[in-house]
Amino acid sequence: MARINDNYLKLRAGYLFPEIARRVKAFAQSAPSARIIRLGIGDVTEPLPAAVLAAMHKAVDEMGRRQTFRGYGPEQGYDFLRQAIADNDFAARGCQVSPEEIFISDGSKCDTGNILDIFGADNIIAVTDPVYPVYVDTNVMAGHTGPANPRGEYAGLVYLPATADNDFVPPLPAGRVDLIYLCYPNNPTGAVASAAALRRWVDYARQHQAIILYDAAYEAYITDPAIPHSIYEIPGAREVAIEFRSFSKIAGFTGVRCAFTVVPQTLKARAADGSMVELHKLWMRRHTTKFNGVSYITQRGAEAIYSPDGRQQVRALLDFYLENARLIRAALDEAGLPVYGGVNAPYVWARTPDGQSSWDFFDHLLRQAHVVVTPGSGFGASGEGYFRVSAFNSRANVQEAIQRLRHLLKA
Amino acid sequence: MARINDNYLKLRAGYLFPEIARRVKAFAQSAPSARIIRLGIGDVTEPLPAAVLAAMHKAVDEMGRRQTFRGYGPEQGYDFLRQAIADNDFAARGCQVSPEEIFISDGSKCDTGNILDIFGADNIIAVTDPVYPVYVDTNVMAGHTGPANPRGEYAGLVYLPATADNDFVPPLPAGRVDLIYLCYPNNPTGAVASAAALRRWVDYARQHQAIILYDAAYEAYITDPAIPHSIYEIPGAREVAIEFRSFSKIAGFTGVRCAFTVVPQTLKARAADGSMVELHKLWMRRHTTKFNGVSYITQRGAEAIYSPDGRQQVRALLDFYLENARLIRAALDEAGLPVYGGVNAPYVWARTPDGQSSWDFFDHLLRQAHVVVTPGSGFGASGEGYFRVSAFNSRANVQEAIQRLRHLLKA
Repeated sequence: MARINDNYLKLRAGYLFPEIARRVKAFAQSAPSARIIRLGIGDVTEPLPAAVLAAMHKAVDEMGRRQTFRGYGPEQGYDFLRQAIADNDFAARGCQVSPEEIFISDGSKCDTGNILDIFGADNIIAVTDPVYPVYVDTNVMAGHTGPANPRGEYAGLVYLPATADNDFVPPLPAGRVDLIYLCYPNNPTGAVASAAALRRWVDYARQHQAIILYDAAYEAYITDPAIPHSIYEIPGAREVAIEFRSFSKIAGFTGVRCAFTVVPQTLKARAADGSMVELHKLWMRRHTTKFNGVSYITQRGAEAIYSPDGRQQVRALLDFYLENARLIRAALDEAGLPVYGGVNAPYVWARTPDGQSSWDFFDHLLRQAHVVVTPGSGFGASGEGYFRVSAFNSRANVQEAIQRLRHLLKA
Repeated sequence: MARINDNYLKLRAGYLFPEIARRVKAFAQSAPSARIIRLGIGDVTEPLPAAVLAAMHKAVDEMGRRQTFRGYGPEQGYDFLRQAIADNDFAARGCQVSPEEIFISDGSKCDTGNILDIFGADNIIAVTDPVYPVYVDTNVMAGHTGPANPRGEYAGLVYLPATADNDFVPPLPAGRVDLIYLCYPNNPTGAVASAAALRRWVDYARQHQAIILYDAAYEAYITDPAIPHSIYEIPGAREVAIEFRSFSKIAGFTGVRCAFTVVPQTLKARAADGSMVELHKLWMRRHTTKFNGVSYITQRGAEAIYSPDGRQQVRALLDFYLENARLIRAALDEAGLPVYGGVNAPYVWARTPDGQSSWDFFDHLLRQAHVVVTPGSGFGASGEGYFRVSAFNSRANVQEAIQRLRHLLKA
């Protein structure tokens, strides 16, 4: 008799974004004439850069001729893309990352979940709170936790509160942890980690032989030149960190699917017999056995991001969304709400007015202003009393949403 | 201190295709003038169908305009593709499979590995021998096995020998098994399973509440109208089977990446508390949490396979590779080797001459005829003394390879 993975039954039913979708749908049905503006889920809205489109058209044409047709590519990605990434994202910033250490994939969400495959079941896992829910849920699925308490916290996970008091960069854990998820620029708070803060984490990891799982999906939004884009800008990080990057929010690839993960060849973890094993070899085995590479057409599109035209077009996209973030931030600030993020990140994080709960304010905003945001409590207990506003939308929609917010918060 | 998943250390170092690549490379270096013809790995060589190219160009254009741009799609796939599959692959063959039961993914290799996520660690797993190595390796990684013996068999797995004596469809297991991998048309033997054979498996699974993981990646190559294309053609299969399908070998998608998995809503397995849980819900949770959907452009390409033009072009591709298979099969038969498959499958499976071992014959063929095949023993102990020839190549290369084989085997 086949048996299920019982860990799935520990997952809380009301996952954040489906719950938002449910409430929005119910409201839309009750008020069909309302023009709802969605600043909830962080999905891009602007078209792909022209350089990407041209590269993909060319690649489609190549797939139509026998001489240039490509079948299975290398599971780790084509050299042309790995080299472009190594040169532009790392060497150009003084980081030592070789093309062989870069694994092209179809998404950072996938990779941050799949990376657990190569780790043992007995690691102590630390996450920030609030947190991107996928880090938590994939650990629950893998059996690394007990059940959830009423606040939604799972037994066995170490939660590190990221609050306004610590600038949303939590202090080091009191005890020992083995795997640490960090995401900067942060989803959901829009906070960044300074070089000094990252150095503390790298030093902690080196001291405890822990591994940092560093999600840098939003690094391109960093405007402050003092803020590191990669954890490998910190000396010693090559021995303790895996970094996740994505083209989704940089170049509008949420529907195209391309990302990459860096696993340095210098990174090791302990086997049961006490020996140290290279994680690069394990991830290589995982990636080549359970994955078959990203579409050639997509990889050519991603490569074009690094062309002179592509870089310029991507810069314009980033500036466009950052200006949206600035407008949102200014409006909330003007309305007197404590507001964070939105300067080096496409997310603005703000306190609800009058101490309202996150979901109460979500409902209020939806019903009265027809604007969708994300309730902070959906990202963890420490997010209660906050809400996240995504800067991914057209300028017209952002301006309209701001007007409605202003009106509502003044009333 | 971070700990690795020690199960990875049980994996045998010399995975089949890298080992072939290593030997071919070494030979090529020693004989640089040799024109090597590769009939080893099953990778398509002919360009994408024109209907697919046109659909992908159109989709790229859509991604270039704000009005038609698509960001995150549904993780399970777009309705247009799920509906086309439900209509053409299932309803048209009298199978009851709804679009909601179809999960679009980036590859069957990925899905056959990932599906283990939703099952418990205490299932007894059965595989055929020879077998597609990914089924075995992913179970090793998941900790479902002990170490390998010198024949490459892992403790804890139930191996079901598929031999010429049983037409490469093994008899039912003597004892109880919980998860059963079946692949028909078979990789590597090219054998098919009759409706009667599949009925026995479905009946066994219903009796033991086992689950069949049915890999039908090569179903489009079936020429015999009596052979089922889907396990859902067998009454009762909706309660016991998951089916994997791929566009890779049908429409040349090995480098484009699109596949799908069917998880019927009627399929259940047991939880620790004895209750029965719908696997569709678990896979939905897995797929939406650890995966982010297939490229919109790719899905539009896949949809075009089902258009009138697309169907005709795919039929021409299949006929082309099947004619290659026929030529290969005839040549080996003529040379006096016992030969199997190649009629309803793109693979020909043959006995090595004079009782040579699979690897000895592989080396002989490579050195003397500069032709690469796949050694049967690479697929499992019961494959020893066999070799697999892939029909995926140009007609000119197939004819040239046949000439060389004829010459070598005559000598």
